[in-house]
Parts: sequence; C-alpha cells; structure tokens
Amino acid sequence: MGAEQLAVLDRIMNLPGFPKSSGMRVVSAEPGRVTMALAKKPELTQFFGHFHGGVITALADHAAGACATSSMPAGKLAVTVEIKVNFLSPADGEEIIARAETIQAGSTIVVVKVDVVSRKAGAERICAFATATMRAVDMPAGFG
Amino acid sequence: MGAEQLAVLDRIMNLPGFPKSSGMRVVSAEPGRVTMALAKKPELTQFFGHFHGGVITALADHAAGACATSSMPAGKLAVTVEIKVNFLSPADGEEIIARAETIQAGSTIVVVKVDVVSRKAGAERICAFATATMRAVDMPAGFG
Amino acid sequence: MGAEQLAVLDRIMNLPGFPKSSGMRVVSAEPGRVTMALAKKPELTQFFGHFHGGVITALADHAAGACATSSMPAGKLAVTVEIKVNFLSPADGEEIIARAETIQAGSTIVVVKVDVVSRKAGAERICAFATATMRAVDMPAGFG
Amino acid sequence: MGAEQLAVLDRIMNLPGFPKSSGMRVVSAEPGRVTMALAKKPELTQFFGHFHGGVITALADHAAGACATSSMPAGKLAVTVEIKVNFLSPADGEEIIARAETIQAGSTIVVVKVDVVSRKAGAERICAFATATMRAVDMPAGFG
Repeated sequence: MGAEQLAVLDRIMNLPGFPKSSGMRVVSAEPGRVTMALAKKPELTQFFGHFHGGVITALADHAAGACATSSMPAGKLAVTVEIKVNFLSPADGEEIIARAETIQAGSTIVVVKVDVVSRKAGAERICAFATATMRAVDMPAGFG
Repeated sequence: MGAEQLAVLDRIMNLPGFPKSSGMRVVSAEPGRVTMALAKKPELTQFFGHFHGGVITALADHAAGACATSSMPAGKLAVTVEIKVNFLSPADGEEIIARAETIQAGSTIVVVKVDVVSRKAGAERICAFATATMRAVDMPAGFG
Repeated sequence: MGAEQLAVLDRIMNLPGFPKSSGMRVVSAEPGRVTMALAKKPELTQFFGHFHGGVITALADHAAGACATSSMPAGKLAVTVEIKVNFLSPADGEEIIARAETIQAGSTIVVVKVDVVSRKAGAERICAFATATMRAVDMPAGFG
Repeated sequence: MGAEQLAVLDRIMNLPGFPKSSGMRVVSAEPGRVTMALAKKPELTQFFGHFHGGVITALADHAAGACATSSMPAGKLAVTVEIKVNFLSPADGEEIIARAETIQAGSTIVVVKVDVVSRKAGAERICAFATATMRAVDMPAGFG
C-alpha cells in the first residue's frame, strides 16, 4: 500500500462515524490485503452477549473497502455494491479480526473475500466469511 | 404475531447490545412481516455522513431475525446463517426503515427478504435490499 | 422495452449456446420486467429428477440479464457481476418460470431480483429467489 | 473421503441429469475438498462463446455439494440452501475446474467456498468464486 493510500486510510478511520465510534483499528495493510480488528464492548453485542452480526459485517465491510481501495489506482475510493456474510460460529471472543484479501481487481469492480475470526483467550476461531463487490469512485476532495 | 412472540421481541429489543444502543425500534410486527426503524446519529455513519453499510445490515438483519422468528413455531428463535445486502443508493436520510418479509418458511430454514428505505424530509427512497437465511434454534431459557 | 431492445433479446436467445440448447424462451418483456420459462427435459435435472440448481440459476441469470439490459440505455448490454440464489422448495414441476424485476438502475450497475416458480399440473409454487448485480458494457458489434 | 462416500459420489455423477449430460467429472475428492471439471461444448456457452454463468454455477454447486457431503456423517447428503457466485473474468478456456473446500461443518449446515478457474492452452485463470450454504438431509434409499 502506497504511503498516500495509507494516509487516506488513516484519515478515513479517524473521521467521525461508526468505524471510529465502535473502535475499529487497522492491524496491517498492504496492497490487496488489509486486516482490521475490533474489541468487544457491551453496545456491540447481540442478545447472547456475542458480537452482533451487523457489527461483524461492518468490520468485514470496512476491511474489504480499504482492501479494495488498495487494489485501485490512486485517486479512487471503493464503495460497497454488495456484501454477503456467512456466520459460521458464535463470535464470543473479546475481539474480532477481519482479514480481507482482493480476489480480482478490474477497472471498475474489485471483489474481496474476508475471513473474520473471533479471538478468545489467545485462541482464534473463524466466526464469519464474507465476500464483497466494490466499485471504484473518484476520491472526494479533501480525502486524497 | 402471537402475544407471546411479541413479548419475546420486546424483551430481545430491550436487552443490552447493539440493537438497543443504536436505537433500533419496532414499527410493526405480524407473522411473516416485521418493520423496524433507526434514526441517524453521528456514531452510526460512514465517512460521507450517511448511514454506515454495517449499520444498515444490522437493522436489516434484526428485522429479518424477528420476521423469521414470527414464521417459526413458538419456542423457536431465528439465528442468521447468512445475509446478503445490495446497497442501492446513499442512505442519506434522517432515518432508515427495514421492511422484512418471509419468502419461505421450512421446518429448520426460513428465508426472508428486506427492503431498506432511507427517509429524508418525509420522502422515502430504497437504499438497500437484503436476503437472509435464518435457522431455527430453541429459544434460550428466560426468553420465551 | 423498445423494439430495438426486443430485437436484440430475440437475437441473443437464438444464438447457439446454453439458453437455446436448454430451451429457454421469453414469456414477456417490458422495461424493468422480463419473464422467461424453461420446460423440463431429462438432461436438465439433478439426481431426484427435479430441475438442477445450476439450470435454475441459469434461467434466473438469463432473465435477470435481459431485464437489466432493458433498464439500460440502448447500446448497452448487461453482464453478470454476481448472482445469489436461495433454493426454497423442490423444482419438481414440468416447467420453471423466472420473473425478473429491476430494483435499482444506476449508470453502470443495475440490481435485479428474480422469483422462480415451478409449475406443476397448472399450479405454481416458488422454488427459488435470486438477486443479481449486473454491469453495463457496450453492446458488441452485430448485436445492436 | 471414505470408500462409501466416494461410491455414493460416483453413483450420483452417473445418474441421468445435468451433471452427466453436460459432462462434469470428478478430478479429486477427499474429506472437505472436492475438485470437478467440465469441458467446453457449444451447448454450454453464452453468447460470446464462453462458458455460460449458469453452467459455471452448476459445476460450482455440484462440487460444493459433494464437498459438503464429504464433511457430513455417512448417511447424510448435502442439498443446496443457497449459492452465491461472483464472475471474475470471462470463462473463455476449453475447460473449467471447480475446487471446493469446506469452510465450516456444523451438525446441520455446512458452508463451502469454491474457486472456479478457466483453463486455456494449459494456463489457469480464476473466472468465478462461489460460496454455498448446504443442509444435511438423509441419504435417499438406494443412494448409500
């Protein structure tokens, strides 16, 4: 990931909104591979006290968006066309980690897959698997 | 929706967690059709100030779960196997409304579709369309 | 659907390939709504003798593609970015019918939903529900 | 894959229907991993002469079904709840190969991902990526 794109990612992560308010953070980022993590807080759970499916999707989507952006030319930003998530096991850990990887990067469409693991007492277990279709739009003024 | 199921829905909505902390509320509920709404707050947006895709998915998922539960026998609760969301237009309104409808109810699997509209100055526009596959599990003790 | 687009649809349906060899036919077509049907033949079934899921998907995809094309400007053709199908009940009829409807038509992306019913002894039952994301490409020379 | 399951797979592949009539064949099979291939024939193409999306989905679905069955207890057979396919590049080779891998095997639901590559003059390129949700049903009499 170029220094310019990393700076954009940083700026986006720190804008007011759900990614920042929920506590999402970038673990690592390189072209075509981005990892993000999110620690558990009571306001992010469903009724069993595990991470809420929408919150898991939000982290997967955010990692996928950063990953797709890293696979696009500078000056382009990825927006989500669609995302599909399979929930595989309860996300009952103290943290979830989303590992996004670009499968295919075309001129307008980038497809990304995301493994989401739940981390509990140091052990990881896959809790969700997502695929996302992303579309390139021009980076808004002030982002680039 | 039976009085018992409505009571369950109420109890679930008021448990601590993302649905309650984000402000989701039930607009209407009958067997096979559930509508929920969520007002905009700064901590629920993405970088353009619109509703975040993960938050839209969370509302769609929650409405779909309640809807699927309403299509299951009493004593069963729907958990999400997978959800797929197409984002159709910016969710730039002051509120989003998810209208879930059961397409097919089998003995273990219920499939639900969800229209999500963004409401802005009284006008509605569709902003997302989701389908969710739900699985019946036994209602946990204390829920039913 | 304009006369020009209908003519294109006709030409595409009659090109050599799976749609023609399997026997797909257009039932009706107007802008944003296309219905196609396919009669059962032994070579289109799965091991229970019902329509094969891939064949159901092919019909849904073809109807979705024609429907998306009908929602695009003349000179554009829809190609499938992704399709998602829920199989709802056995397609055990003598014919399947796919009813595609455009949900949202943007400048490059069109999203379509498709109900597929199985028709048996005059009665219809929904057997599959699909959503497809389509992308506009320039109509190849000789098609338009 | 146990000898019993391999025998079942063989029997299913040789039943009359689309898998056999189209020419699908098993390349390799072990528990949690199944690879199938399909050679191009004029009746399997779309209008550009590439493999039709429905045919690609059929192969992915069939490999996913066998793969999921291999992850289930003996006596169970996988049926498709839903499948989602992203088309990544034109399937313009003389053969397509679907490599299915189980992501998660639960007691009733198994989730599988599938890479589909197009093979052209000895070189492979990914042309599609699918995820499928499969449900265990009792093996019909005469299959096991």
